[in-house]
Amino acid sequence: MSELVKPRTLSGFMELQPRDQVLFDRIRMTLEETYSSFGFFPLDTPILEHSDILLAKAGGETEKQIYRFEKGDTDLTMRFDLTVPLAKYVAMNANELAFPFKRYQIGKVYRGERAQKGRFREFYQADIDIIGDGKLDIRNDAEIPSIIYEGLKKLGIRDFQIRINNRKVLNGLFSVHGVADRSTDILRTVDKLEKIGKENVAESLAELGIPKASTDALLHVLCAGESTEEMLALLKEYQGKDETLDQGLAELSEVLREMENFGVDPAYFRTDLTIARGLDYYTGTVYETTIKKHPEIGSICSGGRYDNLAEFYTSRKLPGVGMSIGLTRLFYILQSQNYLNAECANAVDVLIIPMTKDLAEPLSTSTFLRSSGIRAQVYFEEKKFKQKIAYADKLGIPWCMFLGEDEIKEGKVSLKKLATGEQVTVTREEALSLLLAEKERRNALPAVLL
Amino acid sequence: MSELVKPRTLSGFMELQPRDQVLFDRIRMTLEETYSSFGFFPLDTPILEHSDILLAKAGGETEKQIYRFEKGDTDLTMRFDLTVPLAKYVAMNANELAFPFKRYQIGKVYRGERAQKGRFREFYQADIDIIGDGKLDIRNDAEIPSIIYEGLKKLGIRDFQIRINNRKVLNGLFSVHGVADRSTDILRTVDKLEKIGKENVAESLAELGIPKASTDALLHVLCAGESTEEMLALLKEYQGKDETLDQGLAELSEVLREMENFGVDPAYFRTDLTIARGLDYYTGTVYETTIKKHPEIGSICSGGRYDNLAEFYTSRKLPGVGMSIGLTRLFYILQSQNYLNAECANAVDVLIIPMTKDLAEPLSTSTFLRSSGIRAQVYFEEKKFKQKIAYADKLGIPWCMFLGEDEIKEGKVSLKKLATGEQVTVTREEALSLLLAEKERRNALPAVLL
Repeated sequence: MSELVKPRTLSGFMELQPRDQVLFDRIRMTLEETYSSFGFFPLDTPILEHSDILLAKAGGETEKQIYRFEKGDTDLTMRFDLTVPLAKYVAMNANELAFPFKRYQIGKVYRGERAQKGRFREFYQADIDIIGDGKLDIRNDAEIPSIIYEGLKKLGIRDFQIRINNRKVLNGLFSVHGVADRSTDILRTVDKLEKIGKENVAESLAELGIPKASTDALLHVLCAGESTEEMLALLKEYQGKDETLDQGLAELSEVLREMENFGVDPAYFRTDLTIARGLDYYTGTVYETTIKKHPEIGSICSGGRYDNLAEFYTSRKLPGVGMSIGLTRLFYILQSQNYLNAECANAVDVLIIPMTKDLAEPLSTSTFLRSSGIRAQVYFEEKKFKQKIAYADKLGIPWCMFLGEDEIKEGKVSLKKLATGEQVTVTREEALSLLLAEKERRNALPAVLL
Repeated sequence: MSELVKPRTLSGFMELQPRDQVLFDRIRMTLEETYSSFGFFPLDTPILEHSDILLAKAGGETEKQIYRFEKGDTDLTMRFDLTVPLAKYVAMNANELAFPFKRYQIGKVYRGERAQKGRFREFYQADIDIIGDGKLDIRNDAEIPSIIYEGLKKLGIRDFQIRINNRKVLNGLFSVHGVADRSTDILRTVDKLEKIGKENVAESLAELGIPKASTDALLHVLCAGESTEEMLALLKEYQGKDETLDQGLAELSEVLREMENFGVDPAYFRTDLTIARGLDYYTGTVYETTIKKHPEIGSICSGGRYDNLAEFYTSRKLPGVGMSIGLTRLFYILQSQNYLNAECANAVDVLIIPMTKDLAEPLSTSTFLRSSGIRAQVYFEEKKFKQKIAYADKLGIPWCMFLGEDEIKEGKVSLKKLATGEQVTVTREEALSLLLAEKERRNALPAVLL
């Protein structure tokens, strides 16, 4: 026997214990169902692509972080997001696709970031995007956050707020105040408002050489209260002064109105003129989503509107709007802060423990239960009775079922609820009803308590 | 604007059209549900691992085909199957896991095989395994093919047969006939029985120097008729002559008996003494699964019993049994041979087409439908009416719903079934019933017709 290799997983690669994996999958599937309920198609692009495809746009930072290598004479890169593969896919298939093309993709992406707690090198992103051919109605910009709202609520997350802005409003404000040429610098500074406060931002802007009058006027608007109504009222004073601003304001108002029509509770979203996101990519609506109790986490779900999804691959104009949840990171936070609902971490509804050598009856019972939707495991190993119960307990299986000679003779089964120790002897059908009721109760529980 | 990069996908990497992706996902989810219904936990290991972990066992052929590269000073390999990562996982977590550990994993694996039609370099495997600590009851060997039987049937595949053998029976037969020292050569030859026929195999065995008497006796047993009863009767004549053979025969009989107890229709499985699978890995039960109409495809799902899952990582003895479906290849075959059910390739239940500028009513209707499980898309774009219907048609959306001023005034909606052109004006609730009935009908359809 050769020497043993120490089994280990790469650092920065999440690998979960079985019961945590059940929770992760439940969260993933809830998002899939939500995305799908709005008419989005699933997409599954390869993890490897030609390097020139993935790096057609990428800048220095991205290039440093990527997993890139050669195999034979092919230059390969592992995808670092799901947007570039989408752009490739839509450009390749533009003639076959029906537009607007609505797709979701939940998949792993790879970034060789410095390893640190809560940072992952392999992580899931959960993306939705709507792509238009030539143009795309602004009301799609209202649908995207409405989907995220539904998804987060279904997960059991209630302590979140989706913040919405429109880049055109910002650009318009900069124009009006005569600082359009410094917009990138200003945005970068203003982005820190929440962190460093109004006064420090004012100071930084002064250092950048922005006139005090402009700074005061800008900060007056950008820092306007929590209420969307106040914000819109303030912005309306600018109407007619700048075409871009007018357009941005019209878009923003439309998005906010349609979100209400979608049934999004106004407590869950607000206008925030200080968010800008990926300066060179988004062109209109932008979104960020924060957990109110945990501002330190930053945005758990971001996105926005872009004019040209696939400009590096096609001259066809393909505008789009989308959002992306950093799922692995979100899961890590929920797990490490104890917001996961352990009651949802079970994969088996009942453990059938045969008490006879002959398995005809236990096996046919297991098949009967499964055919009605119960996840039933038959325990085959020779172990002490106590060990079998301990096994069920460790896996979080709520019920054990015993089939001894007496039960079989009477056409019954014994069912024990592990949490309470109660035991009943009932018919198969009665057992099924009990198990289904318990399953339904658990299915209705949220995976997250936050 | 810089030059365009031609959008393209790596050869050997499957990337599906949206409606085919819906079918693929449905098949994947059906397998997940089936695996899960037997009490298996999901597992999701990284796609990248330390090279020394993945290659602890690998031989020359595997090494040539792998995607291996360095990043920084780390030697990385993309997983080429799901078994080696499972071995690592179980060895790493052996103290925390409850045994038997039952897990399924459906994930992508990577092999740099020569590109050819129907061969993939990135492909899904859909694995189930049961791992014991020290020992594992033989009845688990009956459960594994029973799960595959349920899964394939649920997919709509009816034309399959699971073939079962036990390596101990073969080794015992070779012992009895005095050719145990040539077992590897003989197995390799016998494996071709179905392809090249009995006479050619006899000739090959003669060339290997196997005595004619041994060859005749062996082929007499190995080629015994289609019926499992005949086969077992023949094998029983050997009882008492060799301990390994006796043990193998007892195991095989037990597996066949419990499969019947699991409710597997005997038409779907049979003993086949000529299958051996991965000579150096499996130690007892082995399985192959063939599509009867398409023997040329070879096995779509294989596996077996092994004594030591993780011998390269731990001295702990971890026996197991499992099977694996080559999902991407199976899908490719079903797709290219037209066995996929196009009626299952829809992602949207209803397209809501607003006929008014105000969207309050259409949007609240869409939210109402979604909350009852209907996948509802609202069409926002400004297009001609005909183009909107064509859009629904292209996506395979069965119903369109119109909300004009008249409908809204009456508190009704108009619902048009695209297949027939029928249109009714009904209440929201009535529309929901119609849509749910159609959805239920489609959900009951098999994704595969074979």
